[in-house]
Amino acid sequence: MSTQPQTEVEEGFSFTPKFDSDGLITAVATDAESGEVLMVAHMNKDALAKTIESGEAWYYSRSRKALWRKGESSGHVQRVVELRVDCDQDALWLKVEQVGPGACHTGRRSCFYRVLPLGQTGEVKLEFRDGEKTFDPRAVYGKPD
Amino acid sequence: MSTQPQTEVEEGFSFTPKFDSDGLITAVATDAESGEVLMVAHMNKDALAKTIESGEAWYYSRSRKALWRKGESSGHVQRVVELRVDCDQDALWLKVEQVGPGACHTGRRSCFYRVLPLGQTGEVKLEFRDGEKTFDPRAVYGKPD
Repeated sequence: MSTQPQTEVEEGFSFTPKFDSDGLITAVATDAESGEVLMVAHMNKDALAKTIESGEAWYYSRSRKALWRKGESSGHVQRVVELRVDCDQDALWLKVEQVGPGACHTGRRSCFYRVLPLGQTGEVKLEFRDGEKTFDPRAVYGKPD
Repeated sequence: MSTQPQTEVEEGFSFTPKFDSDGLITAVATDAESGEVLMVAHMNKDALAKTIESGEAWYYSRSRKALWRKGESSGHVQRVVELRVDCDQDALWLKVEQVGPGACHTGRRSCFYRVLPLGQTGEVKLEFRDGEKTFDPRAVYGKPD
């Protein structure tokens, strides 16, 4: 909820994150080594403070309405190698070291395991790519199928 | 606006993008070669359809409330090399070939040119990294300072 002039937001040294009307900011986590996008999630003020303080990724789960330390149930924590903010300070980029076999609750390394073919109109059929499961989510999260 | 069961959303071939209450979906653009995150933006249904059809990135500008072909004023278009969707279909990842010197309206290659130091509490001072301007935004966009 910045009241800074736009030049200061874009060119200054002050961190004035712009949370949306739900109090959240978008966070993109990439693998620090491969550059692969692992996941897109959200942080509230607390999750952001904990991430900065601990150097491990904390998010806010919109579905569970709860602060969420990434890996708290799976052990698949994310060590933040670098944290960046964008020009208008409404998005964050975390370069992370992903501990364990994957970031995605479906059992895959990345949440982005399906491709949309380009150059067409109408209905889109997804194609799986890098979609192999690297772990069994039922074993890790103890959820029923 | 999906009415699909969650397993179908996560494991199926149907593209059923989940737009938020404003009709938008988050889109992350990375440099297809370096893996660098260039920008985080939003697409509405039209922007997404145009991106898929044309293979060039279209977004929806929340500030201007308008459909926006990336590069329409700057010439810095983004050719989409690959377009992916995440597990719950509420985020998109575009691997792009960024035409021209940069993606950011501030005159930089990426919008993420500032780092947040980790391991601290309280006020955060940003540090510029890869913050050199690669073009003059006033010359490109014709805006006053």
